[in-house]
Parts: sequence; structure tokens; C-alpha cells
Amino acid sequence: MGKEHLSRQFDADLDDIRMELLEMGGTVELMIDNSVRALVERDSSLAKLVITTDFQINRMEMEIDEKCLHLLALRQPAARDLRFATLALKIVTDLERIGDQCANIAKRTLELNLEPALKPYADLPRMAQAVNSLVRDALDAFVREDPQLAAAVCAKDRFVDELDDQVQREMLTFMMEDSGNLGRAVRINSVSKYLERVADHATNIAEMVIFMVNGKDIRHAALGS
Amino acid sequence: MGKEHLSRQFDADLDDIRMELLEMGGTVELMIDNSVRALVERDSSLAKLVITTDFQINRMEMEIDEKCLHLLALRQPAARDLRFATLALKIVTDLERIGDQCANIAKRTLELNLEPALKPYADLPRMAQAVNSLVRDALDAFVREDPQLAAAVCAKDRFVDELDDQVQREMLTFMMEDSGNLGRAVRINSVSKYLERVADHATNIAEMVIFMVNGKDIRHAALGS
Repeated sequence: MGKEHLSRQFDADLDDIRMELLEMGGTVELMIDNSVRALVERDSSLAKLVITTDFQINRMEMEIDEKCLHLLALRQPAARDLRFATLALKIVTDLERIGDQCANIAKRTLELNLEPALKPYADLPRMAQAVNSLVRDALDAFVREDPQLAAAVCAKDRFVDELDDQVQREMLTFMMEDSGNLGRAVRINSVSKYLERVADHATNIAEMVIFMVNGKDIRHAALGS
Repeated sequence: MGKEHLSRQFDADLDDIRMELLEMGGTVELMIDNSVRALVERDSSLAKLVITTDFQINRMEMEIDEKCLHLLALRQPAARDLRFATLALKIVTDLERIGDQCANIAKRTLELNLEPALKPYADLPRMAQAVNSLVRDALDAFVREDPQLAAAVCAKDRFVDELDDQVQREMLTFMMEDSGNLGRAVRINSVSKYLERVADHATNIAEMVIFMVNGKDIRHAALGS
């Protein structure tokens, strides 16, 4: 094979990994939406779909892992491309764990749907929307190698933390008003915590992107942890 | 350089990464102990030490990342060794995030130490001990490539979840008894949740070890997520 052919093949492999990662990201974003929609609309079959989709996410992780290993083993990429492939390995782990959190939301939803609704879930859809845009932006930042966009993700994570605090406080009030609310309030708190963890994963991805683009002094110095 | 020399150099590089990972693991285990000891003994300067150690952990992560990248770029390992190096890349991320959780415990501790103790913290040290042994076993399983030990970690994670549930329920009782307990009870709940997240990271490491040793069909099939 000529050198040019090898380089074209290499670029095709990188594009392939990039596309699969975006596809996995899109699936995960849909899981976030669906899990909270299943809660708000009391749609248990949608919740079950989210739980099933999590198996698909696990399979996607293994496929992308394999492709990255293959690329690292056979094509021996250097410098920037090596960083891309290793970062892809780390990012799929975060995406897979986001899938786990969505499956957790779906499980709490199935339990919550067995009882009357405690209250209209206005905050959680707002939180889900914010979390979703963090995941999308973190992946865009990765694909476009855009550290500014990644830094914006890290900044917006605080907004999700505040929404979570708000939900936790509101549920505490419900608990204190009537101990019959306890079980449901604890579950809603869990859903809020799961969403907050998804945002943390998006932030982790964004921090790694900043590291990839700017080199090793940025990740922990500028953003803290 | 002769082939034998190259192979010896390669083994030395692998050993070096293995040693650094274990050192990072040991530091993280100490952080878990110290963060909960700082809480129980109301030792704010120990809590501050934990927060400082987190910066050291972040530096260790970057160093191991660099060594793995170097190994992947220059030595082009194949098959099993390739898996080892890529898994090391994923594991340091989990260790770094365990460090973050310990720093979070230390931050809540500094806040809790400003008020009188709510109650003797008997459950949290027990939980910290359990969590610590999960982290140690997960890393041992990695270094020894021992899938049985890794599976045991995944099984024991449930014990930590139960301890966390117990703490959450107990704190709820405190909250309902007296609203003056609210702030402290919420913070203790957070500490318990942070420990539970540390256990989740240990489980994640263990699942990846099983994957590394047994190949791609085991990770998500046998253990679920």
C-alpha cells in the first residue's frame, strides 16, 4: 500500500470513530429526553424503552472501544490523532455511564408511576433540557476540537447544580408536610441527582476536550475539580 | 537496539505504569480514610489536607495518561498489552474522580465542623472502610488480571448501597424531628452519597477488568449495569 492510501485509510478510520461517537451521543441525548418525558407523562412503556436502549448503549461502547484499539494497534497514530483516539476511549465510558443514569431515572419512573403524582414536575424537564444541551455541546466541542465551547459547558454545569438544589429543597418541604409523601419525594430527589450526575459526565468530557486541545497544563489548573 | 532489549524496555514501561497506578490508588485510599476521619474526629486541618491531596491526584492522572500515550505511540503494543494500556487510561479517570469525591467529603466536613455534631457518625466510618476495600480489590484485580476478585467487587457494591440507604433514612428521621437539623442532615446525606459514588467507581473499574481479561462479551452481559 502507498503512503497516501494508508493516510486516506487512517482518516477514514478516524471519521468512522467520530461518527459512531456522535451516533452514541445522539442515542444518549434521546434517552435523557425520553426518561424524563416518561416521568412527566407517566408513560411506563417509554420508561421500559429507555431501559432497553441502555443495552444498545453498552454494545456501542464496546464497538467504539474495539475500533479505537484497532486503530491504535494497526495504524500507530502519532501526536494529535493518538490523543483523539485515547480521548474517544475515555469519552465512550462517560457516555455509557450517562446511559446508566437514564436507565436509573426510568427505573424510578416505573416505581413513581405506581402512585398518584406528587406534583407537576416542572423543574425536572427544565433540568433535563439543560443537561441535554450540556451533553450535546460537550460532544460538539470534542468533534470540533473547540476549547471555548468546552469551557462554556463547565461553566453551565453550575446552573444544573442549582436546579438540583432547588428540587432537593422542595422535596424536603413535601417530606416534612406529610410523611405519606416520603417515598415519592425520595425518588424524585434521586431522579434529580441522576440528572446532576449526567451533567457531571458532560463536564468531565468537556474538561478532557480542553486538555486534548490545549495540552497538559490546562485541565486541572484552570477549571479545578 | 536488539529485539530483546526492546522487549525488556517495553516490560519496564508496563511495570512503571502499573506501579504509578498502584501509587495513585494508595493515595486515593488514604484520601478516603482521611476524609471520613476528618469528619468523625472533627479535624478541619485533616480535611484541608485531603483537598490539597486532590491536586496531587490530578497531577498523577496527567502523568500516567502521558506515559500510556507514550507507550502506545512509541512501542506499539499488541493485543493484551494494548488492552492493559488502554484500560490504564480509563482507570486513572476513575481514580481521579474518586479523588474529587473525597475532596467533596472534605468540603462538607469543613462546613459540618462549624456546628455541633448531629450524632456519632458510626455508619460513615463503616461505609468508608467497605468502600476502601472495594477500591483496593478493584485495583488488585486489575494488576493481577483476576476476574474473580473483580466480580466480588461488583457483588459487594450492593452492601455499600444498603449502608447508604440506611444513612439516608436515618437522616430523614433527624430532619423530621427538628428542622434545626436540616442543614447538617443534608450534608451528612451528601457525604454518604459521595462514598456511594466512590464505590460505583470501584465497580466500574472491576467491570472493565472483567472485560479486559474475559473479552468483549462479559462486561455488560453478566454484570448488567
